[in-house]
Amino acid sequence: MKKIAVLTSGGDSPAMNAALRAITLSCGYHQLQCVGFYHGYNGLIDDQHVDMQNLNINSALQHGGTILKSARCHSMLSNEGVMQACNTLRKHDIDALIVIGGDGSLKGLQAIKQHWKRQVIGLPGTIDNDLNGTDNTIGFSTAVTTATHAIDKIRDTANAFERVFIVEVMGRHSGHIAFNVGIATGAEAIISFENFSKDQANIKVNEILKAIEKQASTHGSFLIILAENLWPGGAQALKESLNKQGQLNSAMCILGHIQRGGSPTPEDRNLATELGLASVDAILNSKDNIMIGKCSGTVVETTLNDVINTPKQLNTGWVNAHQEQLTYYLK
Amino acid sequence: MKKIAVLTSGGDSPAMNAALRAITLSCGYHQLQCVGFYHGYNGLIDDQHVDMQNLNINSALQHGGTILKSARCHSMLSNEGVMQACNTLRKHDIDALIVIGGDGSLKGLQAIKQHWKRQVIGLPGTIDNDLNGTDNTIGFSTAVTTATHAIDKIRDTANAFERVFIVEVMGRHSGHIAFNVGIATGAEAIISFENFSKDQANIKVNEILKAIEKQASTHGSFLIILAENLWPGGAQALKESLNKQGQLNSAMCILGHIQRGGSPTPEDRNLATELGLASVDAILNSKDNIMIGKCSGTVVETTLNDVINTPKQLNTGWVNAHQEQLTYYLK
Amino acid sequence: MKKIAVLTSGGDSPAMNAALRAITLSCGYHQLQCVGFYHGYNGLIDDQHVDMQNLNINSALQHGGTILKSARCHSMLSNEGVMQACNTLRKHDIDALIVIGGDGSLKGLQAIKQHWKRQVIGLPGTIDNDLNGTDNTIGFSTAVTTATHAIDKIRDTANAFERVFIVEVMGRHSGHIAFNVGIATGAEAIISFENFSKDQANIKVNEILKAIEKQASTHGSFLIILAENLWPGGAQALKESLNKQGQLNSAMCILGHIQRGGSPTPEDRNLATELGLASVDAILNSKDNIMIGKCSGTVVETTLNDVINTPKQLNTGWVNAHQEQLTYYLK
Amino acid sequence: MKKIAVLTSGGDSPAMNAALRAITLSCGYHQLQCVGFYHGYNGLIDDQHVDMQNLNINSALQHGGTILKSARCHSMLSNEGVMQACNTLRKHDIDALIVIGGDGSLKGLQAIKQHWKRQVIGLPGTIDNDLNGTDNTIGFSTAVTTATHAIDKIRDTANAFERVFIVEVMGRHSGHIAFNVGIATGAEAIISFENFSKDQANIKVNEILKAIEKQASTHGSFLIILAENLWPGGAQALKESLNKQGQLNSAMCILGHIQRGGSPTPEDRNLATELGLASVDAILNSKDNIMIGKCSGTVVETTLNDVINTPKQLNTGWVNAHQEQLTYYLK
Repeated sequence: MKKIAVLTSGGDSPAMNAALRAITLSCGYHQLQCVGFYHGYNGLIDDQHVDMQNLNINSALQHGGTILKSARCHSMLSNEGVMQACNTLRKHDIDALIVIGGDGSLKGLQAIKQHWKRQVIGLPGTIDNDLNGTDNTIGFSTAVTTATHAIDKIRDTANAFERVFIVEVMGRHSGHIAFNVGIATGAEAIISFENFSKDQANIKVNEILKAIEKQASTHGSFLIILAENLWPGGAQALKESLNKQGQLNSAMCILGHIQRGGSPTPEDRNLATELGLASVDAILNSKDNIMIGKCSGTVVETTLNDVINTPKQLNTGWVNAHQEQLTYYLK
Repeated sequence: MKKIAVLTSGGDSPAMNAALRAITLSCGYHQLQCVGFYHGYNGLIDDQHVDMQNLNINSALQHGGTILKSARCHSMLSNEGVMQACNTLRKHDIDALIVIGGDGSLKGLQAIKQHWKRQVIGLPGTIDNDLNGTDNTIGFSTAVTTATHAIDKIRDTANAFERVFIVEVMGRHSGHIAFNVGIATGAEAIISFENFSKDQANIKVNEILKAIEKQASTHGSFLIILAENLWPGGAQALKESLNKQGQLNSAMCILGHIQRGGSPTPEDRNLATELGLASVDAILNSKDNIMIGKCSGTVVETTLNDVINTPKQLNTGWVNAHQEQLTYYLK
Repeated sequence: MKKIAVLTSGGDSPAMNAALRAITLSCGYHQLQCVGFYHGYNGLIDDQHVDMQNLNINSALQHGGTILKSARCHSMLSNEGVMQACNTLRKHDIDALIVIGGDGSLKGLQAIKQHWKRQVIGLPGTIDNDLNGTDNTIGFSTAVTTATHAIDKIRDTANAFERVFIVEVMGRHSGHIAFNVGIATGAEAIISFENFSKDQANIKVNEILKAIEKQASTHGSFLIILAENLWPGGAQALKESLNKQGQLNSAMCILGHIQRGGSPTPEDRNLATELGLASVDAILNSKDNIMIGKCSGTVVETTLNDVINTPKQLNTGWVNAHQEQLTYYLK
Repeated sequence: MKKIAVLTSGGDSPAMNAALRAITLSCGYHQLQCVGFYHGYNGLIDDQHVDMQNLNINSALQHGGTILKSARCHSMLSNEGVMQACNTLRKHDIDALIVIGGDGSLKGLQAIKQHWKRQVIGLPGTIDNDLNGTDNTIGFSTAVTTATHAIDKIRDTANAFERVFIVEVMGRHSGHIAFNVGIATGAEAIISFENFSKDQANIKVNEILKAIEKQASTHGSFLIILAENLWPGGAQALKESLNKQGQLNSAMCILGHIQRGGSPTPEDRNLATELGLASVDAILNSKDNIMIGKCSGTVVETTLNDVINTPKQLNTGWVNAHQEQLTYYLK
């Protein structure tokens, strides 16, 4: 009987539990053993493990976070750490390792593959949706939903006060969250990596001030969605620039970690379930060194190397549509 | 300057307002006039209209329902009704008509096309997702989300009582909602058009009773998702059969119209926005007699004829995965 | 060291877990042992117990249901059942028993008190708010909230179709849920025990039909909140009467068990926490044979006898205000 | 026929719309005219008004913000501004003015009363709950609910990472939100005006670090709720102190304006409806110079002077219960 190990790593994302459930149930169906390691790669290094059949896996389906806990693991950046992780895999006689996480976690999986010759499979678990090889990552839908409903509330206040609000959303170094949330909330401006470079900051401030001026004559509020890690000085600096140059009283809000947790959307639960089942199938079919994603409605396998080295593009048609048609009245 | 008419028809679905907003803003951007007709086709027959620029279209983005109201229109089944609708279109010198609705609404659009030679464009607006030519219809994501979160609450009680619950969900004559909700909520059984025919009712009851018996020995609750319009006598009859033959105390709940309303998910808002923009583009590009949908991430045009006459299939891989792997422990 | 037992009984209600958490933490603080019995009184009869310190009690705070499970227990209606429950309490040398539940559960507690001479304390856990001795029961706020947000969704559809909707809500034999939900959702009519007797059914139908007629000329939808267990034949029968006599196409929805579960509101969590702490204090202060509630912002003790034999009245000022001022335009 | 004016002022709070609806419907019932002024006192100064019967007041019931808009009005701090506001009241021959807002808004009402001899009535509309004369202000329940559910999501991530999180909540200069949210979310520490003074900052940091250390050995996450306007340097400074002195990797989140908006809870809608009805009754009963609130379940009138000059105390039993029993294991 094969023995499969699984862990969740890096920033947690909603529906990681749904993936763990699908993997556990599918292992039961195929009569495979399934061992979970806690705290990301740390649990592999320290050998903290659990028989997945012993966890209350069904109850976890509707909850955020991950019952295997997660962590960013600095030890995996050293050769010793990787060797220690491989030793634990050998000690338990593991046949295949499934890692659910983002970019850094999949790099860790590649490092393990260098020293451990059995099967490794990655699943895309990150709210940022910045992984090639899948249309959506596990957790992205929930993060966009949480941010959208939070900003709907801010819009209420912005409308009541006819006020300018800057809302900073997550996304690491890409605008997937910013653009999806911006269009869903009818943001008057979206500032993200795809339509902004740092040396344009002054130009952008002027552009936005002009748009705000036009807006003032029609309906009141003006909402700016700002991607994190983008504007020099962040949302606070943008607010200060707008207020100073435009003599405004704009406000700002950094949504922060509320975007990571919460009960996952059905979209995320179902994606996680499908990819979880597919990862066990892939192991049974002797697949190795791949990440499993879903593109255009179909389960797709991509080599870890291609996932990690090809940056994922945001559909620029989307970007242009927003810029031109939805905010045309600002021009 | 071209003049575009728009209406929402049939069962309302969340994010119809987002589609109306995108159409209105895009018409403004392209300097087209945009007239809305109220109450579905009734407004076309009775000439109840509004200049879309006069509605508070941005505020509608986050709300369910439709600011143009909706209705099922029996008059459209008669030749007189259709002729009267066409007369109104001529009276206002409309160049193109966009209808947002389901199967019946698109048939109405075909009927109009018979007598009115200008452009007609359909957009898929129904919670049931039973329209060919688009992966998801506008409103489907929200309906699945609402049902999922409602059933999460039922699961709490079912777990506390270790009880069998039957929950009937919408879907007209297809299992899109039933299967998506069933997998998202970890339902122990899903009964839908794709895996059930009426003459199997007795076999199905026995099958489920066996599964419930197995379940009783492990973890407590047992959740059955039932598609509407399927079981002879509905959820009540299924409950009575289970309780009688299995000497159970199962309970049932018909989710009903809560599945139609509510603030739309970002998925629905963004789909509606993209299709709304694409419908105005299509008019500018002289397209006619089509429905605009989104398949595999791409905007797609399908002739109304193909949309209406080709039933949409549910991915049976999905169905089988649920049946076999996720509930294997019941067998 | 004292030893306290706790159980949750009858229909589960949100924030029962918050009460269990407060009791467990307070026992720890006061260095008391705390034993939980599963499945309501059944666990007492069958001796299914757990050391509360071993449960993941903090994680339960935000979730519906009850980690001790619940049940209605028919054995408690017999003398044998009660004696068996008392035997288990003696076997474990329990000093005090806390029961969280509704009317029937507190009657069970009285029965135990007849045969077991140590301390018994009740906490009001039911969504129906039909217990004397407390302004609100634990779970009532969440049930009203869930029903309100569900009906907000139905209102979207009702507005889009300008349609009459009947929504049946829980409440057992009182109108606490019906009136609180009815006013919160702006219902055009509320039909409950406080303003209806069965022999008035025909009069009521005529009254509502007149109001619907008036409404039709102003803004569209007409929402009727109906208390369960009230109308002969239920919501379905009311719908049929309205549709037949008024030639309407009204729709109906029975909210059902979604009202029992779900993440508790902060009001319910905080009430449950305060009453949970107070129940341990009461035990330390040698209190016995009481239910602990909160009235006018103050923790209050009421004898079990007074709780059970005095029906709780709904504030009729509330009722009249709705009837007269909020729906005056219908008259 | 009497003529009543109404406006919403200061920071908007959820269910201001419900109060406006109740006032409008009650005026209709009593055949009084009802005029709304926009943008708080600014609308009074600039004479921007609307006949309340012309607004879609029923639809506003379930939405956040205020359909009369709101503003903080600096002109009211000058004699000229106040005189201009009074002139507008005279110009429209207003008999009574109802203002829904917080502390500053009620001071504005007092200023008007100095120069305008007709009736003035205040309603408590602020999320901060810092007004004497009412147990809860309109909007408080919703703010606590929004913050609680947001922090539930942060708890998911905190648990997954076994991490320390500081969450800053609103409240102006009182701990009503901080303590209600802190207990509802099971926060391990609450830092607010009631249990902290600025010169204790170093002591508090040490105290918390000790508690975190104890916590580390049991279950993972540690949540600190911090009241705004309290800690020198805010949540960021507290985070830096903890991380530096405790060599931690704690994170922080400022919830900000999401706490002001959103669909109001039924508690807020029903409080606002009751107080709105009571304010019209008070006018008919020749009451003047009062704020109407609800204490211990009863509608209560308090002179504006007493509301403004008596600070509202937080129940310290609540505070102590949290400090001692719920976090006992941290000591």
